[in-house]
Amino acid sequence: MQPYELSVAAAADALRARRLSPVELVDSVLDRIEQVEPHLRGYVTVTAERARRSARAAARETADGRSRGPLHGIPMALKDLIDAAGTATTASSRVRADHLADADSTVAARLAAAGAVLVGKTHTHEFAYGLTTPQTRNAWDGERVAGGSSGGSAVAVAAGAAGFALGTDTGGSIRVPAALNGVVGLKPTYGLVPRHGVTSLSWSLDHVGPLTRTVEDAALVLSALAGHDPRDPGSLVTHPTDDRPPRGTDLTGLRVGVPGNYYFDHVTPDVEAAVRRAVDRLADLGAHLVEVEIPMTRYIQATQWGLMVPEATAYHERTLRTAPDRYTDDVRILLEAGELLSAGDYLRAQRARTLMRQAWQQLLDEVDVIAAPTVPTVAVPSGQETITWPDGTVESVSDAYVRLSAPANITGVPSLTVPVGHDPAGMPIGMQLLGRPLGEPVLLRVGHAYEQSLPTRALAPVA
Amino acid sequence: MQPYELSVAAAADALRARRLSPVELVDSVLDRIEQVEPHLRGYVTVTAERARRSARAAARETADGRSRGPLHGIPMALKDLIDAAGTATTASSRVRADHLADADSTVAARLAAAGAVLVGKTHTHEFAYGLTTPQTRNAWDGERVAGGSSGGSAVAVAAGAAGFALGTDTGGSIRVPAALNGVVGLKPTYGLVPRHGVTSLSWSLDHVGPLTRTVEDAALVLSALAGHDPRDPGSLVTHPTDDRPPRGTDLTGLRVGVPGNYYFDHVTPDVEAAVRRAVDRLADLGAHLVEVEIPMTRYIQATQWGLMVPEATAYHERTLRTAPDRYTDDVRILLEAGELLSAGDYLRAQRARTLMRQAWQQLLDEVDVIAAPTVPTVAVPSGQETITWPDGTVESVSDAYVRLSAPANITGVPSLTVPVGHDPAGMPIGMQLLGRPLGEPVLLRVGHAYEQSLPTRALAPVA
Repeated sequence: MQPYELSVAAAADALRARRLSPVELVDSVLDRIEQVEPHLRGYVTVTAERARRSARAAARETADGRSRGPLHGIPMALKDLIDAAGTATTASSRVRADHLADADSTVAARLAAAGAVLVGKTHTHEFAYGLTTPQTRNAWDGERVAGGSSGGSAVAVAAGAAGFALGTDTGGSIRVPAALNGVVGLKPTYGLVPRHGVTSLSWSLDHVGPLTRTVEDAALVLSALAGHDPRDPGSLVTHPTDDRPPRGTDLTGLRVGVPGNYYFDHVTPDVEAAVRRAVDRLADLGAHLVEVEIPMTRYIQATQWGLMVPEATAYHERTLRTAPDRYTDDVRILLEAGELLSAGDYLRAQRARTLMRQAWQQLLDEVDVIAAPTVPTVAVPSGQETITWPDGTVESVSDAYVRLSAPANITGVPSLTVPVGHDPAGMPIGMQLLGRPLGEPVLLRVGHAYEQSLPTRALAPVA
Repeated sequence: MQPYELSVAAAADALRARRLSPVELVDSVLDRIEQVEPHLRGYVTVTAERARRSARAAARETADGRSRGPLHGIPMALKDLIDAAGTATTASSRVRADHLADADSTVAARLAAAGAVLVGKTHTHEFAYGLTTPQTRNAWDGERVAGGSSGGSAVAVAAGAAGFALGTDTGGSIRVPAALNGVVGLKPTYGLVPRHGVTSLSWSLDHVGPLTRTVEDAALVLSALAGHDPRDPGSLVTHPTDDRPPRGTDLTGLRVGVPGNYYFDHVTPDVEAAVRRAVDRLADLGAHLVEVEIPMTRYIQATQWGLMVPEATAYHERTLRTAPDRYTDDVRILLEAGELLSAGDYLRAQRARTLMRQAWQQLLDEVDVIAAPTVPTVAVPSGQETITWPDGTVESVSDAYVRLSAPANITGVPSLTVPVGHDPAGMPIGMQLLGRPLGEPVLLRVGHAYEQSLPTRALAPVA
């Protein structure tokens, strides 16, 4: 096994035991990037020299007997919306061609303090305003979409081109590409991970979180990210928790909600079968399955768009006037459309969100987690714009990919996606676990138990 | 001294010592209402029979040796936006002519549980959307405005027609009428007092709080009102505190901020002189005066209106379509104007609020409280629509009365207004003390010390 194939936890063990040095690990990942990038195009920038310097510094600290913890010396990638001092934050947009970050975002600073080594910045759908990341290719099939908007982070992690990566999630942008590339993605509770220094799409829906190859890795990264920062007005004051999941797979007594509506509607048979198999496995591990009804489903799409569109437009207000031609057409049109919404439209969405939060709170009194498909279908071929369901309904690919993710953005509840198999063409399928606000430890425990009950997954077979 | 003249604290002492019975106290207040109501018109409804029943029940509890605390048997009035089961909540509007509350609001339920006796519902400017309460007359001069929107509550308390009253405050609606009628008014920290069952004007700016004759009384009422209620989405999870201020008047070590800008601009000489005298008295009591600069003042008015107008319109959306002719013209026009605002306008106001909150937080790191005029002028004659300042600036009466109150609504910080004297015509003047979020105990301590250092105030000389 090559170093780049190791999970964060396994690499941390090897580094701690000095079976592996940070320099060897980073070199292995940089080599892997050179090998797979021509196929994947996941990175905007690879910071190879900086990474080698950081790795040498980490190695010196190890030699001095100092460790910064489980992320010490681990190669990571940051979605290119996230400021890292001295690198550009392009948001994969021509609007940001000359933008250089002069300070770390809170998350970049926290990960640097935890010893992680930045290997590069990954592609996003332009300004995170889309679900495909057209610059980037799926790690399992180069003819298919990577998913988005954190597409570059997902394919890098899936291919071993980063130990872990950060993404952002406004309507599914961590979970969708994670599911489509067979990796783990965590959208934390709204406010748990600070967004200071992260380019906003829609501040009342934006979240930052990890993409990793295992649930345990997601827990390790989350522990480094979480905690109050007054510079993010949405940041929660919370107490530090140890998110590392327990070793066992016993889920006796855990109540798992299985939606009787919404989450299995307009979902492909392959996705439904894989998720139901995974839910059955949770029952085999001792969980008690409870059918639940998802509330206010007819308001989900209108609420998600009613909040996101005007907030995105407000953020881009100035650039839309000074440099509209620097956006790609699809993003510029969406941003301009936001100018047409009234305050009443936005307030209706805000009020629906308030009611939806209350209804979900009641729902989550009944069960500990809800298990559901992450996306209704696997990665579609690049360029495909719509999905036609058996009943004749035609849905845009964007709407389909946002549909099952949006409730967790609107309500702010945490959602963890884990790989639960492949369709006959070999494309990955994801299951999301949704929990109570600040219920990340429960989600991570369930996801980890599920994962431990299965054989280890391989990396994506790039090229 | 008649029972209706007693402060809440003094009445509570007399009730506890059985020098006074709840029945005598309530009868005295009901007689006083009969005497002054023809002049004041503060009440929409007087619930005399219900009050007498409650008083007898309170007396029986006292006879059994049971007391519900300092509000046991105290007559109170509720602004007619606040639901009390079995009474109408008219919002002083024809739109609500047939509206009967079938359950108590959270605050009504908490006050009932604390033993307070409802004597009636008081007039508000229609739906709280105005600063004068035209139905009602100032307690000190029947030819002048009561102020608003909690005008009925203020004049009732000022005249001894209630032991205390509740009001609501979206842009000054507790503090303005309190100041104009020479009583104490407290707008608590946003989220401290639940608004479930209270008609909304603008949910991100709305607050419920007490109007009383002394600062100590405000503390007693606040203690009964504060605390989390999940049915109000803005409600804070807080720990109960004892808000009763200490007895002494020593303010040594306290830092009092005196604004060098904004709060003394376009203020009448009488108001300025009375407030500066009161500030000097705080210094005499040991406080250290510090000149402070109020941040972002040019955004205050646009932010207040940019948040309030569309939220008010959203709340009234349905009735505006079904029964527009049931509103008075001035309120209907304001509500209809709200339909013209764009989501971008509202979001600009939201973003300005976020920045303003941060700037005020820094300001309140420097000082413990800020002392400033509550309103720039005393009560104007009824019907007067504008104020002309010596430099020729013409300001609407509404804008003038909102101007110094709005910062505490936008930022959510608590503000306590206390009477600090009269102008040569005998009209009351108020000073507001602004503090840190959840800093009510400090405001109450300062206000109480100020009040204790002065002779007892008389009731308003109605009729």
